[in-house]
Amino acid sequence: MADAALVELAKRRGFFFGSNGAYGGTAGFYTFGPQGAALKRNVESAWRDRFTLQEGNREIESPTVMPEPVFEASGHLETFDDMLVECGECGDSHRADHLVEDATDVEDAEALPAEEVETLIRDHEIACPACGSPLAGRDVEDFNLMFATDIGPGDGQRGYLRPETAQGIFVEFPRLKEYARGNLPFGITQIGPAYRNEIAPRGGLLRLREFTQAELEQFIDPETDDPPLERVTDVEVRLYPAAEQTKPDGDYRHTTVGEAVADGTIGSPWVGYYLGVAMEWYERIGVDLNRFRFRQHLAGERAHYAADCWDAESEVDGDWIEIAGFAYRGDYDLSKHDAYGDDTFTVFKRYDEPKTVERATVDPDMSVLGPAFGGDAAAVADALETLAERDPEAFAAETVAVEVDGETHEVDADVAGFAVEEVTETGEHITPHVVEPSFGVGRTVQTLLAHAYETDEVDDEERTYLSLAPEVAPRDAAVFPLVTSDERLTALADRVAADLRAAGLAVSYDDSGSIGRRYRRQDEVGTPFCVTVDRDGIETDGAETVTVRERDSAAQVRLPVDELAGELTRLLSGESFEALTDRYETVETDVETN
Amino acid sequence: MADAALVELAKRRGFFFGSNGAYGGTAGFYTFGPQGAALKRNVESAWRDRFTLQEGNREIESPTVMPEPVFEASGHLETFDDMLVECGECGDSHRADHLVEDATDVEDAEALPAEEVETLIRDHEIACPACGSPLAGRDVEDFNLMFATDIGPGDGQRGYLRPETAQGIFVEFPRLKEYARGNLPFGITQIGPAYRNEIAPRGGLLRLREFTQAELEQFIDPETDDPPLERVTDVEVRLYPAAEQTKPDGDYRHTTVGEAVADGTIGSPWVGYYLGVAMEWYERIGVDLNRFRFRQHLAGERAHYAADCWDAESEVDGDWIEIAGFAYRGDYDLSKHDAYGDDTFTVFKRYDEPKTVERATVDPDMSVLGPAFGGDAAAVADALETLAERDPEAFAAETVAVEVDGETHEVDADVAGFAVEEVTETGEHITPHVVEPSFGVGRTVQTLLAHAYETDEVDDEERTYLSLAPEVAPRDAAVFPLVTSDERLTALADRVAADLRAAGLAVSYDDSGSIGRRYRRQDEVGTPFCVTVDRDGIETDGAETVTVRERDSAAQVRLPVDELAGELTRLLSGESFEALTDRYETVETDVETN
Repeated sequence: MADAALVELAKRRGFFFGSNGAYGGTAGFYTFGPQGAALKRNVESAWRDRFTLQEGNREIESPTVMPEPVFEASGHLETFDDMLVECGECGDSHRADHLVEDATDVEDAEALPAEEVETLIRDHEIACPACGSPLAGRDVEDFNLMFATDIGPGDGQRGYLRPETAQGIFVEFPRLKEYARGNLPFGITQIGPAYRNEIAPRGGLLRLREFTQAELEQFIDPETDDPPLERVTDVEVRLYPAAEQTKPDGDYRHTTVGEAVADGTIGSPWVGYYLGVAMEWYERIGVDLNRFRFRQHLAGERAHYAADCWDAESEVDGDWIEIAGFAYRGDYDLSKHDAYGDDTFTVFKRYDEPKTVERATVDPDMSVLGPAFGGDAAAVADALETLAERDPEAFAAETVAVEVDGETHEVDADVAGFAVEEVTETGEHITPHVVEPSFGVGRTVQTLLAHAYETDEVDDEERTYLSLAPEVAPRDAAVFPLVTSDERLTALADRVAADLRAAGLAVSYDDSGSIGRRYRRQDEVGTPFCVTVDRDGIETDGAETVTVRERDSAAQVRLPVDELAGELTRLLSGESFEALTDRYETVETDVETN
Repeated sequence: MADAALVELAKRRGFFFGSNGAYGGTAGFYTFGPQGAALKRNVESAWRDRFTLQEGNREIESPTVMPEPVFEASGHLETFDDMLVECGECGDSHRADHLVEDATDVEDAEALPAEEVETLIRDHEIACPACGSPLAGRDVEDFNLMFATDIGPGDGQRGYLRPETAQGIFVEFPRLKEYARGNLPFGITQIGPAYRNEIAPRGGLLRLREFTQAELEQFIDPETDDPPLERVTDVEVRLYPAAEQTKPDGDYRHTTVGEAVADGTIGSPWVGYYLGVAMEWYERIGVDLNRFRFRQHLAGERAHYAADCWDAESEVDGDWIEIAGFAYRGDYDLSKHDAYGDDTFTVFKRYDEPKTVERATVDPDMSVLGPAFGGDAAAVADALETLAERDPEAFAAETVAVEVDGETHEVDADVAGFAVEEVTETGEHITPHVVEPSFGVGRTVQTLLAHAYETDEVDDEERTYLSLAPEVAPRDAAVFPLVTSDERLTALADRVAADLRAAGLAVSYDDSGSIGRRYRRQDEVGTPFCVTVDRDGIETDGAETVTVRERDSAAQVRLPVDELAGELTRLLSGESFEALTDRYETVETDVETN
């Protein structure tokens, strides 16, 4: 649609642009200009409000650089790879799987072994997209997508820029559970940079090497914790289940969260709950729901440990792009860190009633074992203890066989001192399961811009405007003196801008060019309200007045300066502009008066 | 003072703690827990409000990874070093300058050449602080403090984690000036991570390898742009000028911003302006002004290009720590990028009136130069043009001498076609100067915690509390049901918490332990107001009521649930708690009633 025009507008008006242009640019890195940074921050604040504050979750902030052992545990060191092929002629790097998918009818080349991809490149005579040289015979390698660095001088520690904010949460679980006083369920969120050293970054905010994630890790007891599903049970969603995607005439299911969980379309109530919360949130920030869907992962897309996965997808320029993922990750993350780390990644789950359980123990007679086994006696005693825990039945026989250093020893059962005791247990250590809603902030920003981009005609001139929701629009209002030649106007405009800022509004001030040009500039960055100080407003008897213009309708009212901050605050919290046109004098559009 | 106790509290209550504890910890990296992340975010929001929104400045967000040429231009690649000495025995790395300063009476070892530091280590028999082996004979090297990484696969580009957020602003100046439509002055801000690969990180938030900066780059025309000094002229400041620091009985100057700028104590009005703004801001967020000062850099501390530099310093545990710097950086940053980068880092400054200037030109007669100089003719013509610009007087003689490739050629003056034209110029290209207020966010957080840490006695028990300003406190309020055994109480408490969250408040909910313990927990994280739902509140005829307790005084009032959100919002915007005790029934402290 508005692709090229929107990218041009994004750059010209300060939403975003490729970084380091003065140094030839750096592929995969974008800078958010003043408008884009404000829009992005507003999206983050709205996310924080919904997914942290309203849910009673807790937000943390952990470093972007993390040491290697974390990623040995998480699996990123081993598996966070893409398939790389370098051209022998020009040296350009390419995603081998993408080349194969483009040139053949293979659909998921990433799942193939490297040798098979090499064969496909040779058999299909695939050439370097940069220089046209044949790539046959070139090695296809796994390229790890983490940015590596060294922490400290000399033999310091290898570190990586985190590939997801989530690891900064998982790795601190032993402390975070203390803040929750050991009680499940609890949720931890984080918003911040994540990194992926892409082989071939794409344009725009779509596939960057540095990007912002907003992630929520919901820790639950899978046996007892249910989400507050009733809050979102009636939320309507457009689902694209895996089964529909593989049918020739597959279609969307228009249903509610409650129904989709009840009939098993959504496998996990927790995933269903957060799909509902996300749906409400996307509507609130201005995503066009006709260009939005939840798509279930196909079996082959999911990580082996993920029981059910859904993506939020938005339509941008005719393509569906992933803007968030919702995964039931089971105990994968915490049990990996429990195995690799030197701390406890479980919680103690207290039983409602203490339980009495039988526990087998041994108390070997060392005065017999000593002479019989010499230096191995202690090891034999340990082996008996282990055997008692694992297979108490073995002690029913007359002799018990245990293995020490590959050698089997026979021990008289009565020498082992075998007994079964009754023990009272108050609870057990369990590894919480994780439900992870994970949002791409930049992709959300890109979606909002694409869905807000509108053109119409005002005063016989074509106009472009962004119909952004006031909650996320970069500025709340703009203030203009109609002309700068009259000091009374500029003085009042200065005061109005300062008052609005003091009232907490984000305000632009613009005094350059015709008033029509200034309205157009604000329309293009989505400022919901423009305040103009004109002569009529200061020359009237009584209170000073200004005009307020609403972006989408271009309608205007005149209201007293004293009422301005209050009225704008109400408009920004959702009051309709019509309510103002009822109470105040409307103004005929004066776009071209100057 | 409260050092050890505060660090313990910070960890126990979720303000901050060393990262990656389960993997042995990673020196120089800290994670902000739920309370600390909220406090830090509130500090950032307050900074944004004051230094971006209220000032009409613009905030951007640029990547943390930047390519090498940026740091060749900025000078970081060459000079962002510390002096490193490694122990030959245990391999530990140390700051050589710090070892020398500790063992000798040298005060600024960093300024010495490496050989001299090596000599001092040998002569003073300085040993490794880790293992005690002598360091004599070990090389002292410059260690660059930037974290390096590689962007992209193969022969990709070398990149670095930015050592300051400022470079992300400077490098995009050519575009940022367009957003300001070429008009000076304008200010650009950025809040985000910066990195410094310290040789020897210190504890706490003081010297980290990853930290958060809030920086403002104010671009000005040094000839014409003045700050709005009148806004802060009466702000009182405690200054520690360079001259006082070198006197044996040097002392603070208690003065106002206006006076200090007028008498030249503060060299730049722009620096003075931002010292005033910062002073007001530090007071607003709760810095103890009796433990705060502005210290001027000594001549030796300043970068050569910095005309005047002041640090904001706070007293924490008996030490003065730098929490912000204010530097007049001249045109250093932009002229370096103008020289190294492939874009224009100047602005066009329009004259009030077009100026008519004389410009010398030549129009050489090539029909004479050609035969006379052959292949050199064009070069001779170019040399004549250059000479006309640089030294028009030379054309007054009969012949003019120019040099081409080391050879001198004589040309008849009349063949050169020399003339002086009158040209009308509408303006000139100037390189803006930069004034840079640069804040350490983590150090500000540490200062606020240290200055807010208080102990007193309530109900005959010692209590610890953080008297944080409500604007920055991690939570606005906490909600407790007095007991969980009564469902009417928990239901109302749930509703109260949800209502307050919907009103935009950050709310904790706590139902575990005695009410006294819950108050203490909230006191320790600085929650300004605790709301308790008790039986009296639901068993009264008429409206439901709750108690509200103010943190510092531990005083309580009882008020209707319907009034709660409004009253709390007013309290959080600065209304005093006494105003409530006048209007509502006060409650005797019931800390130990449960």
